[in-house]
Amino acid sequence: MSSLNPQRTIDELKELRALTGDENGAQRIAWTETWAKARAWLRAKMEQLPVSIETDEAGNVWTTLKGESDDVLIIGGHMDSVPNGGWLDGCLNVLAGLEVIRRIASEGKPPVTVRLVDWADEEGARFGRSLLGSSAASGTLNPDDVRDLKDKDGIRLEDALANYDVSLDMATDAHRQLQNAKAYLELHIEQGPVLEGLDLPLGVVLGTVGVERHSIKFVGQEAHSGSTPMDRRKDALGGVSKLHLDVRQIAKAHKGVGTVGRVVTHPGIVTAVVGQAEMTLDQRHLDPNELAAMLNEAKAASERIAAEENIEVSWSRLWQIQPLPFHPDLIELCDEAIIETVGVSHRLPSGPLHDAAEMVRAGVPTIMLFVQSLRGISHNKIEDTKEEHLLQCVEALDKLATKTMAWMRK
Amino acid sequence: MSSLNPQRTIDELKELRALTGDENGAQRIAWTETWAKARAWLRAKMEQLPVSIETDEAGNVWTTLKGESDDVLIIGGHMDSVPNGGWLDGCLNVLAGLEVIRRIASEGKPPVTVRLVDWADEEGARFGRSLLGSSAASGTLNPDDVRDLKDKDGIRLEDALANYDVSLDMATDAHRQLQNAKAYLELHIEQGPVLEGLDLPLGVVLGTVGVERHSIKFVGQEAHSGSTPMDRRKDALGGVSKLHLDVRQIAKAHKGVGTVGRVVTHPGIVTAVVGQAEMTLDQRHLDPNELAAMLNEAKAASERIAAEENIEVSWSRLWQIQPLPFHPDLIELCDEAIIETVGVSHRLPSGPLHDAAEMVRAGVPTIMLFVQSLRGISHNKIEDTKEEHLLQCVEALDKLATKTMAWMRK
Repeated sequence: MSSLNPQRTIDELKELRALTGDENGAQRIAWTETWAKARAWLRAKMEQLPVSIETDEAGNVWTTLKGESDDVLIIGGHMDSVPNGGWLDGCLNVLAGLEVIRRIASEGKPPVTVRLVDWADEEGARFGRSLLGSSAASGTLNPDDVRDLKDKDGIRLEDALANYDVSLDMATDAHRQLQNAKAYLELHIEQGPVLEGLDLPLGVVLGTVGVERHSIKFVGQEAHSGSTPMDRRKDALGGVSKLHLDVRQIAKAHKGVGTVGRVVTHPGIVTAVVGQAEMTLDQRHLDPNELAAMLNEAKAASERIAAEENIEVSWSRLWQIQPLPFHPDLIELCDEAIIETVGVSHRLPSGPLHDAAEMVRAGVPTIMLFVQSLRGISHNKIEDTKEEHLLQCVEALDKLATKTMAWMRK
Repeated sequence: MSSLNPQRTIDELKELRALTGDENGAQRIAWTETWAKARAWLRAKMEQLPVSIETDEAGNVWTTLKGESDDVLIIGGHMDSVPNGGWLDGCLNVLAGLEVIRRIASEGKPPVTVRLVDWADEEGARFGRSLLGSSAASGTLNPDDVRDLKDKDGIRLEDALANYDVSLDMATDAHRQLQNAKAYLELHIEQGPVLEGLDLPLGVVLGTVGVERHSIKFVGQEAHSGSTPMDRRKDALGGVSKLHLDVRQIAKAHKGVGTVGRVVTHPGIVTAVVGQAEMTLDQRHLDPNELAAMLNEAKAASERIAAEENIEVSWSRLWQIQPLPFHPDLIELCDEAIIETVGVSHRLPSGPLHDAAEMVRAGVPTIMLFVQSLRGISHNKIEDTKEEHLLQCVEALDKLATKTMAWMRK
């Protein structure tokens, strides 16, 4: 008979909301007093367990329940939020992990060591650099890339971190925390509409998708809308309209996503054929080959369209990241845990990045579990999940932890 | 043997350019000193002919060569230009008309009265209201609509006109100038690429097109570009892209023009599906039934597209004007005059408005003659027409005047 008490997680989430939120939502922005208050509140709860607690060189807080083996199972989350954020994003993971560790600790010394990590500054809300603490631990952070980032008041990232006893130049020493790490688990709200659309409470995350982000410019010829016949035009907007529709078809054909989020027209007046038009492109897929194919097809489409329209096209890459697939064994275990909890599971990729992505990069076998988001909305005070589903996700995370510990012992 | 000297027209155009242009182009903005200087220069040339000259209540200057009959043939143009304008727009018409009247006067008293009008403020460059003088004469001007228009220095239109002895409240008394008017002829550069594309010097203008100008808004649902599957999206930009392509097809099918000149996306960021998208629409056709059909088809397309995309659409009209067709007999005469001059003619509508449109509204049988524009460019110092074509257009206008006088006598 388990001592797991998922209702306690909901009660603690509400307690945290009352402590660190206001009428506009959660305000636990990393490297602020409200965030520090949330972490102190969490620490007080941790200290009631038979654990050791330490803060690493990057500001990540590690709670360790020593086991029979030095092999480590990590459960992760983040207490920080965006400004005016929701009541679940990040802290659900930490508080569900706390509940799981309580249950494990209540049963005596576990077969492996279990650690809960509260990553520092997942959101990057103050300085614009997300995954700061986890990327320091994984080793992908380059301090020189972020040192001089400034917040809206002009304060440098390096100086703000120093106020919280974090020396940026030492931050990547946090990597030693991953010694003996044999598995990483992270629960998160979906922040999308897929599970709600399927009427399912929980899903297994297959990995974080790869992203190709580009700016595309078509150049035609500005011309008078009254005196220029249709067959004499070089309409730069024709490039955007056709490519936008093609990008959507390409995404559907590859079962990925493709978005044109911004269009700008020049000269942009009602009486002139568009001379220049710019558009953004954001393509995502979990499979690197599919992502590459999506990009190649979009480029080929743009060339074909430019020829059709008698206009020029040029591309410039804004950003890219490779897909980071989760561990196949842990995907199976997570599926089992979900089915045992709610009877039916669903596998889906994560569009947004998470700290779990940095654990994949660090070579730690990693898995994430999603719980349904209402209306797919997050980073907003109306972010919500049914309480029934919150209870179920804590239970599923607990089952997954048990299964993973057994898998680690094989 | 005609005394017509088209080369003199070119010489006078160059003389005017030297007098009233600078390194940036023509600077004969209406209600400025440079414009007044141009008109004084023109008047000195007129005064060498057996004519009477008067300025009407709207500032239009009328030069009258009395004929055997009181029936009047009007040849019109405008000396005013846009800032940094070309050397032909408006003044070609006036100076070619001057040359035609010189030729007619050299042959003695003509069978009908011939008048040359230099319309005041065709361009509306200073106050944003074009066709000011001709609309005062036609009676379509409402002084209260324009009285308080301000230039960039905050000077009111009414006050600026008073400086040139024009009382705005009296301006529509200029209508009496159209008594006995039986035909109106206007030569103009095409300001478009049609004749150049056909390698033809001259064309008959069928009328000024009607215009439907609208703003169209699609409303979908802003969503995260990573976490929202393609089949769950309400992409407002999908409405714009599909409707833009349909608008172009509709224009081609009806042999009109249709332009989407401006697109605005909200929130307009690379990582979000477009929640709201706005576009402008400009449709033009010479036939009112075709124009109405084009608009109806675009509206129907927008409704069909909104349903396909699961988004909302709304329209708001920005502006409209009815087509103003020229006189069928004068179209035939103009065709004949062009064929006799250069061997081949072409009929085309005018996309831009001209003072001739106001003469149609006043009920005067009206025709325009276009001469080829190089690269279709006007309102710019690089506006140009081959000298060979300038010589031909003066000759064609002269033949058209002779033919029209004969037609008036029927």
